[in-house]
Amino acid sequence: MARLKAEQRREQLIRVATKLFARYGYGRTTTAAIARDAGVTEPILYRHFKGKQDLYIAILRRMSGQLTEHWIRTTQGITDPQEKMKALARAFPTHLGKLEDAYRVLHGALAVSRDKQVLAVLREHYEVVIQFFQQLITDGKESGIFKKDLNASLAAWQIVYMGIGYAMVMLNLPNASHYAIDVGVETLFGGYRS
Amino acid sequence: MARLKAEQRREQLIRVATKLFARYGYGRTTTAAIARDAGVTEPILYRHFKGKQDLYIAILRRMSGQLTEHWIRTTQGITDPQEKMKALARAFPTHLGKLEDAYRVLHGALAVSRDKQVLAVLREHYEVVIQFFQQLITDGKESGIFKKDLNASLAAWQIVYMGIGYAMVMLNLPNASHYAIDVGVETLFGGYRS
Repeated sequence: MARLKAEQRREQLIRVATKLFARYGYGRTTTAAIARDAGVTEPILYRHFKGKQDLYIAILRRMSGQLTEHWIRTTQGITDPQEKMKALARAFPTHLGKLEDAYRVLHGALAVSRDKQVLAVLREHYEVVIQFFQQLITDGKESGIFKKDLNASLAAWQIVYMGIGYAMVMLNLPNASHYAIDVGVETLFGGYRS
Repeated sequence: MARLKAEQRREQLIRVATKLFARYGYGRTTTAAIARDAGVTEPILYRHFKGKQDLYIAILRRMSGQLTEHWIRTTQGITDPQEKMKALARAFPTHLGKLEDAYRVLHGALAVSRDKQVLAVLREHYEVVIQFFQQLITDGKESGIFKKDLNASLAAWQIVYMGIGYAMVMLNLPNASHYAIDVGVETLFGGYRS
């Protein structure tokens, strides 16, 4: 029971820190503020995390894990690799809304962090993301949907670049773009298909 | 002469602030540090800018202007709208390298700023960028290169989303991606062409 309680506390601290980092940025958020909002003392926070950087990395790791879980759930029962990616694209706006704060922390870290450990976690994250899409593109090439000479790594990066840009604009400049993601994915795949 | 000197001082302060904001982030950069690195006193800085936010906005506006100038220079003498965009894409890595710090400030602002005035400047910036690409796409549709039913606004946003994502990854996670921008633009336009 004690172990479970520790995990719950850890989860709560990650949740509170995500909200504060998203709202005030990493630099202006203190461990004192995180502890206060979580209703604990700072020493209790330090029992679970070595400090602010450790919490930041925990948020990024958790978010990376949530993304993979979301992808598996969303593509369950779909066999066609192109349809899998279309399903992910269609689910992206809702997913983004649900994980809004976590995405803000992720893209904030990518845009402004100079911390080597933070950048290493981001590197790992995008490696997993690229692997995932590269596999889907390769599957699509093998099944004859996509062009034989399509570079799978390049196509995967295009999807990731577009995802980052879309998320950055949608979250931070709402209503700047009236982008229809289903039309967008159809247009993009027009260049991939054989 | 006095007027020119004021403009030079303003330019110098913008240059110094761009470097510091890019390196330490907006939150951790003080006007005292900017003044010190520019070799002036803080009251002198305040003669040119109302404060840190004012300097931040000046950087974003200047960068937006530099981008437009760069586009005009790069596409000079090219008539084909598709070739214009290919030339811009090919020039992007070098352009990004030259304006590295300004891009860091721009994307940092987009990712983490909650300041209404800053977000308004970003909104203006992306409106100009979208107008520019939307016109090129429309020209390409009219000349028969691009599909008649291609949504010009959507295609322009795809280019901008991809540009943001590409810049964020290239600047902050160097060597994570071996993306060939000329192949990338050819693949993307494959879905646009009639």
